[in-house]
Amino acid sequence: MPAESAVSRAVEISRTHRGRAASHILREFVKLLAIPNVAAKRADLQANAELLAATFARRRVRTDLLSLRTGPPFVYGELRSPEPRRTIGIYAHYDGQPVNPGRWTFGPWEPTLCTGPLEAGGRPIPLPKRGAAIDPEWRVYARSAADDKAPFSALAAAIDALQAAGQPITSNLKLLFDGEEESSSLNLPRILELYGDSYQDVDLWLLLDGPVHPSRRPQLLFGVRGVTGFELTVYGPARSLHSGHYGNWVPEPGVALARLLASLFDEAGRVSVEGFYQACVPATAAEREALARLPECDDELREELGLSRAGFDGLSRSECNMLPSVTIRGLRSAQVGERARNVIPATAEASISLRLGRGCDPDAMLDLVERHIARQGFHIVRVPPDHDTRMRHPWVARVIRHRGYRAGTTSMEHPTVAGVVEAVTTAAGEPPLLVPMSGASMPLYLFTESLGKPAVVVPIANHDNNQHAADENLRVANLWYGVDLYAALLAV
Amino acid sequence: MPAESAVSRAVEISRTHRGRAASHILREFVKLLAIPNVAAKRADLQANAELLAATFARRRVRTDLLSLRTGPPFVYGELRSPEPRRTIGIYAHYDGQPVNPGRWTFGPWEPTLCTGPLEAGGRPIPLPKRGAAIDPEWRVYARSAADDKAPFSALAAAIDALQAAGQPITSNLKLLFDGEEESSSLNLPRILELYGDSYQDVDLWLLLDGPVHPSRRPQLLFGVRGVTGFELTVYGPARSLHSGHYGNWVPEPGVALARLLASLFDEAGRVSVEGFYQACVPATAAEREALARLPECDDELREELGLSRAGFDGLSRSECNMLPSVTIRGLRSAQVGERARNVIPATAEASISLRLGRGCDPDAMLDLVERHIARQGFHIVRVPPDHDTRMRHPWVARVIRHRGYRAGTTSMEHPTVAGVVEAVTTAAGEPPLLVPMSGASMPLYLFTESLGKPAVVVPIANHDNNQHAADENLRVANLWYGVDLYAALLAV
Repeated sequence: MPAESAVSRAVEISRTHRGRAASHILREFVKLLAIPNVAAKRADLQANAELLAATFARRRVRTDLLSLRTGPPFVYGELRSPEPRRTIGIYAHYDGQPVNPGRWTFGPWEPTLCTGPLEAGGRPIPLPKRGAAIDPEWRVYARSAADDKAPFSALAAAIDALQAAGQPITSNLKLLFDGEEESSSLNLPRILELYGDSYQDVDLWLLLDGPVHPSRRPQLLFGVRGVTGFELTVYGPARSLHSGHYGNWVPEPGVALARLLASLFDEAGRVSVEGFYQACVPATAAEREALARLPECDDELREELGLSRAGFDGLSRSECNMLPSVTIRGLRSAQVGERARNVIPATAEASISLRLGRGCDPDAMLDLVERHIARQGFHIVRVPPDHDTRMRHPWVARVIRHRGYRAGTTSMEHPTVAGVVEAVTTAAGEPPLLVPMSGASMPLYLFTESLGKPAVVVPIANHDNNQHAADENLRVANLWYGVDLYAALLAV
Repeated sequence: MPAESAVSRAVEISRTHRGRAASHILREFVKLLAIPNVAAKRADLQANAELLAATFARRRVRTDLLSLRTGPPFVYGELRSPEPRRTIGIYAHYDGQPVNPGRWTFGPWEPTLCTGPLEAGGRPIPLPKRGAAIDPEWRVYARSAADDKAPFSALAAAIDALQAAGQPITSNLKLLFDGEEESSSLNLPRILELYGDSYQDVDLWLLLDGPVHPSRRPQLLFGVRGVTGFELTVYGPARSLHSGHYGNWVPEPGVALARLLASLFDEAGRVSVEGFYQACVPATAAEREALARLPECDDELREELGLSRAGFDGLSRSECNMLPSVTIRGLRSAQVGERARNVIPATAEASISLRLGRGCDPDAMLDLVERHIARQGFHIVRVPPDHDTRMRHPWVARVIRHRGYRAGTTSMEHPTVAGVVEAVTTAAGEPPLLVPMSGASMPLYLFTESLGKPAVVVPIANHDNNQHAADENLRVANLWYGVDLYAALLAV
């Protein structure tokens, strides 16, 4: 393990550098944020990948774009240390969740610096000139400001800082930037298979993603939930009908969908699907201890989110994150509000997301849910039902399964972990919270299972970043934390 | 009552006229259909009203546009008979339901003639030249082709036919064309109040609207259900959240909405709201007899609509139409399908329509529903809840009531009814079905209660016209039936 002084020095160097280059770092960040990055537009993703490759090539990183038949390219990068103590693999993603532009205060790809959170009266301001003072409470609004472009700009700045100061980078670095993390990283397994040799020397993977703890304390995550889901369509009459001529007589898809969705949960909010929680491997004693050490801020969070209660069975948010979950992430049937018409709609749809605890197989979990749907009296189809199917079954539900992946965890006792804790402690000025499992999903299992290496998630974003929603934002202080932390990690 | 021969002669004259002028009638119809007519665009509605006034002014009808501070104008019309036997009031509406253009095969206001129903392989064809053969099974596709612009073109053609042949029109006519029927005819009560004197001599109101019986037999409707409804929003967290970080812990608005909507109905499909059916005056003996005489075509309808079952308690569709109903006419929460994101949405919304049986007061019915919502544990608000409201109540529902109106009925034994039955029988070649109550809504109660006059709904459209939905259409044979029927009515 490194001399403490090298890590401290690296953080000092980072602070000096970002004090001087703050406006430049922000400008480089904003340039990256300005490129749209949703899965539907492949050319945009390509542009992101090219900008990232160029960004790191300027820092003497050997870069490449790795492409498969489908999907956006992966950015590969390699930076050799003259006297490497280890090889660190760095994974981050440059794609973002889809946007509903009407809900954004500014365009999702028109990065906007604000004097604070919009909901607290933050106002847009121009990017500061070189040398101008920058308030760390300012925020940058844009899709992927937090999830997950901040790590790229912070990492580039950290490398700049160390290289300019002649401070040695003590590990070989292997970069792997994904362009479809928000689409379940469909091609990542194949890339790790095809290019596995290039990453074979990695001793420790760092997944740069996610927010710090809601208490604003630094954290490290040793596991993430898996994810899957499905699109659900329930069928009413073959065509939408006048609600006057047919209302009462024609079975309504909205009612059937409501009944089915309500049946997925009990009154307390527990998932009612048989076998759902049993599929999950319970927390170990060490994990339970770690959970108990986490600061309790659920009440503050409830207050912030305007919720009079949350959770079930007295479980904390961190404990809930160890369990699989079901979320109704979207509903649609005909129209509501001004555009609503007096019809009995022909279909009602829901988009359902599942998060998976350790040990839950994505397909097996969807099997359980489908069994539940069938038990509620629905005949399950994969394509819209034909006339015969309609006439044979009182209710028909189309289930289109999402692809997904399972949870992944790394032992908190792994020997490579100490250096990471050291780096965070030095950069943040306090030791990180050690979280056994994050509720969010990343394809961490590929690193721990397919490559057989430890993998730790190292988050830097503010917790209130509106991740996946409109008005996503990064607090400038969190970008600075990222620069300091990565500099420390590179000097460990 | 009139000599039978005059009515028969009028129908003969109509047939000869439309045989000769078919292409002209279609062109005039298409011209009217080409003007958009949704409530959101006031100028479009004005253009419809002006074209209608000009259309009837050309037939020597004294026309006027009656406007109030809000809403589109009413078209007033007056045609005096030299020797009037009675005064007939004619009500129809020129506005249409909102459209979702993406779901239409052709533009909703690009009227398109097709060789048959699209679902049966109908193909678009140009409008026929003068004198070319016209297949009565052709259909005209456009918003309001059936609901409710067909009566205007048919009435104009019927007046043309009689005037050209010198056949006397035996009633004074008073026209009243509404431009906001699909928005609950908000201004009609006030118009009838302000201009009541102009309509005081009306002996019988004919409401030209709606489809013939699904068996294709002619029908007359002696009542219509009332209508109201509400927009419902259920609140989850104050902002939409990452479903990974918060899934399990944060109560989901989609689940709460599903539970609430499911609670509105029992397993059989009956409305579970306490007092809902009791608010309704049951059918009289005469109405029950009339219901029993209606042909049973529910099984054919189920087949056509792809429904393995329909109705509840063994009630026929016509019997269901005598009762109040609840329809989930729309659902929305975040996004589904390709645009779905992994979020816990902040809200889930439903648009709910109520149809009202005789005796149901719209506001009293909404009171019952709100009481039900409150009993499910929801605190009801009219504006989005503030922080304190959120923190005080486990669930908050915003209810925005629609304006509405009550049901209306006319006695089937009223002396003015015989002439109408006579006219239909002559035009259609068979006596009409006498339906005590249509499931659809029209502001009929204003004529029967406010003006104290009998009012009968005289439908001409095909039942499979996709009313209120995409690809609305009128079968040409039904337009011809309208011309013949109105000619007969004018000669009674």
